[in-house]
Amino acid sequence: MVGSLGPKLIENGGIHDVKGYKMQGYAAGIKRMRKDLSIIYSTQANTAAAGVFTTNKVRAAPVVLSEKHVASGRARAIVCNAGCANAATGEQGYRDAVEMAEITAKSLNVKPEEVIVASTGVIGRHLPMDIVREGIKNCAGTLDQAEPGSVARSMMTTDLVPKEVLVEAEINGTVVRFGGVAKGSGMIHPNMATMLGWVITDAAVEPSALRTALRDVVNRTFNMISVDGDTSTNDMCVVLANGAAGNTPVTRQRGYQQLKDALYLVCETLAKKIARDGEGATTLLEVRIENARSANDARIAARAVTKSPLVKSAVFGRDPNWGRIIAAVGYSGAEFDPAKIDVQMKSAAGAAWVLKNGEPCETLDNAGLRRIVDKDHVIFVVDLHDGEHDAVAWGCDLTYDYVKINADYTT
Amino acid sequence: MVGSLGPKLIENGGIHDVKGYKMQGYAAGIKRMRKDLSIIYSTQANTAAAGVFTTNKVRAAPVVLSEKHVASGRARAIVCNAGCANAATGEQGYRDAVEMAEITAKSLNVKPEEVIVASTGVIGRHLPMDIVREGIKNCAGTLDQAEPGSVARSMMTTDLVPKEVLVEAEINGTVVRFGGVAKGSGMIHPNMATMLGWVITDAAVEPSALRTALRDVVNRTFNMISVDGDTSTNDMCVVLANGAAGNTPVTRQRGYQQLKDALYLVCETLAKKIARDGEGATTLLEVRIENARSANDARIAARAVTKSPLVKSAVFGRDPNWGRIIAAVGYSGAEFDPAKIDVQMKSAAGAAWVLKNGEPCETLDNAGLRRIVDKDHVIFVVDLHDGEHDAVAWGCDLTYDYVKINADYTT
Repeated sequence: MVGSLGPKLIENGGIHDVKGYKMQGYAAGIKRMRKDLSIIYSTQANTAAAGVFTTNKVRAAPVVLSEKHVASGRARAIVCNAGCANAATGEQGYRDAVEMAEITAKSLNVKPEEVIVASTGVIGRHLPMDIVREGIKNCAGTLDQAEPGSVARSMMTTDLVPKEVLVEAEINGTVVRFGGVAKGSGMIHPNMATMLGWVITDAAVEPSALRTALRDVVNRTFNMISVDGDTSTNDMCVVLANGAAGNTPVTRQRGYQQLKDALYLVCETLAKKIARDGEGATTLLEVRIENARSANDARIAARAVTKSPLVKSAVFGRDPNWGRIIAAVGYSGAEFDPAKIDVQMKSAAGAAWVLKNGEPCETLDNAGLRRIVDKDHVIFVVDLHDGEHDAVAWGCDLTYDYVKINADYTT
Repeated sequence: MVGSLGPKLIENGGIHDVKGYKMQGYAAGIKRMRKDLSIIYSTQANTAAAGVFTTNKVRAAPVVLSEKHVASGRARAIVCNAGCANAATGEQGYRDAVEMAEITAKSLNVKPEEVIVASTGVIGRHLPMDIVREGIKNCAGTLDQAEPGSVARSMMTTDLVPKEVLVEAEINGTVVRFGGVAKGSGMIHPNMATMLGWVITDAAVEPSALRTALRDVVNRTFNMISVDGDTSTNDMCVVLANGAAGNTPVTRQRGYQQLKDALYLVCETLAKKIARDGEGATTLLEVRIENARSANDARIAARAVTKSPLVKSAVFGRDPNWGRIIAAVGYSGAEFDPAKIDVQMKSAAGAAWVLKNGEPCETLDNAGLRRIVDKDHVIFVVDLHDGEHDAVAWGCDLTYDYVKINADYTT
C-alpha cells in the first residue's frame, strides 16, 4: 500500500496481480519445446486502450492491424506469438493477423476489433496458421488456470530472462496497480514506439488521457534504449486500463500526473531490463546528457553514445576510452560547443571527471578509471553547459556473444 | 598509356609514380617499432589543393588548422602522424598542430599555410611533441631516398593492409597520373568527409574545379562506406594537383568530366579497400539501392543496410537473413512503398531474388542462398520501384575480431 508519496515497485509482483484480468502463456508448438503464445484478457467490458507502434516503413501485418484496432481507444485482449514476426509477408500475412484476432475474439466472446495482435521472431516467413489457430483456442481455454510469469516467458525470443514488473500507486485517492511485461534483446532501437511491451492497469482512465500519457512516457523510457540501433518492424507498446480498482477515472485534469508517474516507473523499469538483457550483454550502459540546448539535442546525443559500436566495445573490454564518448556526441547532430563539454565516468566503484571544458583532466589515472568501468552498470555523464535540458538513455555493451547470436539466427 | 577511353588502374603503382612529388614514411617513435609519420611534398610552386573535412562537432586540432590552410586553394605539403589523434586536446592541441605545420614548412622551405596537418590515433591525449618535432625534421631530410609504399604504411592504425592506388588518365589531351593513399579500419562512417585520404596528381587543375570535383566524388565514394557507423573527429581527404604533367589546366569548362572520372576511380578503389579492411572484417558488403524516389533516399537506404549490426552479423555468419535488409531500409528514413520492394542477393556464386513486390519468393532455397552469401564479396540489391535514383554503399561484416580489437584499444 502506498500513500501519496508516489508509485512504488512491488518485489516479485507481476501482471497477474492486477485486478480484472485473466492471462496465460502457452507452448503452441511454433517454437520447439518453449512457450510461444500468450493471451491477456480484461474481464471488464469498458476497458480503455492506447498504443504506440514502430516508425519502421516496413511494418509487420499485426502492427498495421493493431494500430487500427487501438484507434477506438478501447480493447479487451492482447494475443501474441513468438517464433515468427509475420513481417514482409504481404497480403497473406495480413489475412493471418486478422484471423488471429477473429479466433481470439471468438474464444473470449469479444469483438475482433477489441483484440490487439502481435508477433515477434524471424522476418519474411508466413505464420504456421494450423498451429496458431489450435494454440489460441487452447490458450484461451486455460486462462482460469493461469501460471504467473507465463506471459512474459512466452514472448521471449533471444531474451535470457523474462521482463515483468508490478507497480502500486495512488490515483485520485484510490490504490491502483500497473503490471507490465516486455520482450527485447535484439533489433532494439525503438523510435516513437518500442519492442513488444504490454502494460495493464486496474485504474480507470479516459482513453485520450491514456493515449497522451503513454506517448509521453514511452518517449522518455522505451524510446531511449538501444541494443543495436536496429529499429524493428514489429515494435509496439499497448496499455490497457480496465477500471476494476474503482477509482474516479483519470482525465487530463484529474490524476493525470499520478498516472504518468506510475506509467513511467513501469516503463523505465522494463526499459532498463531490456537494455541489461540486450543480446550478449554483460553491462548496463547509462548515458546522461545534462544542460543541452534543447530536449531533442539531449536525446539525440544520449542515444548516439549508447548506440556507438566503439563505445559499446570499449565498455565490454572495461576500457575507459572516453574519447569515443565525445566523438559520438560530436556526430550525433546535437548542437553544443566542444570547448565547454565535461565528461564523467561513474559506477558503484566511484566517479571521475575525464574531460573538463573540452580538455583532458590532468589527474587522469588509467587504473582508477578501469576500476570504475569494471562494473555491470556503468554511467557516463556528459555536461554540455549549453542550456537546461537533460536526457537519459540506456544501452549495453557489444560482445562476442552479440555477434555469435546474430551470425546464425534463421538457420 | 590510355587513350580517350577513360581512366584506368595501374597494377602495383602508387603515389611515388606521380610526377613532381617527393614523399616518405618514417618511424618517428610515436608508436613502437612502426612507421608513424609521413610527409608528401610537391616540388611545384603553383600546386592547387582542395579538401573535405569531418562534420563531427568535436573536430581534432589538425582538422581545424588544415581546413583553414586549404581554403586558399593552394598547398605544397601534407604531414601526418599516427598513434595520437590530437583530438579533444584543447588549446595546447591546436598549438601543437600549428607547430607541426611550422616545422614541416621550415624543413621544406615552404610557408606554414601551405602545409596540411593530419593526425590519427587515440582521442584525448596530447602529442609527444619532442618526438614529433625530431621526426618531422628527420623525415623531411630523407625525401630523396623515399621508400615506395612507406607513406601508406605510416598512416596505418588498426589497418591490416596499406591502401594505395595509381590511376592513369588522359585529360585535355595529355596523359596524367593520380595517386592515392588512405587509412581506414575503425571509426569509419564518413559524413561529408572521410577518414584520412590523400590524392596527388601531376595534372594541372584550377583550384575551384578541384574543389567541386572532390566534393562530388567524395560524396559518391568515401561518404558511402561504413565500418561501424562512428564518424571520426579526424576525417579529412585532401587532393593536391601540381601541374607537372604539363596539360592544359582543367577548369569547369575544360576537362572537368575527365578529372572527375579519374578522381572517382581513385577514391572508389580506396573506399572499397577501406571497407574490405574494416576492423575484423572478413567480407566486403556492397549494397545497391535502385529506383529510389530521390538521390538522398537511395543514399540513406544504402547506408542504413551497410551500417546495421544485424545485417553485418548475418553476413559474418553466412546467414541469408534478408528480413534484416528490409528492416534496415524500413528505418532508414527513405520514402518507399513496402509493397513494391524487391530484394536480390548476389556474389560470385550466383544471384537469387528473395523478395518480389514485398512478398517472399516462393522458390526460396536456404542452402542455395547460403552458398551465395558464403563469399568474401556479397552484394545486396534492393529495387524500390519508386523513382529513378540509384546509390551504392560499401561496408563489411561484424565479427568477433571487431569486438576484440575495440574492447581493448587505449590500454
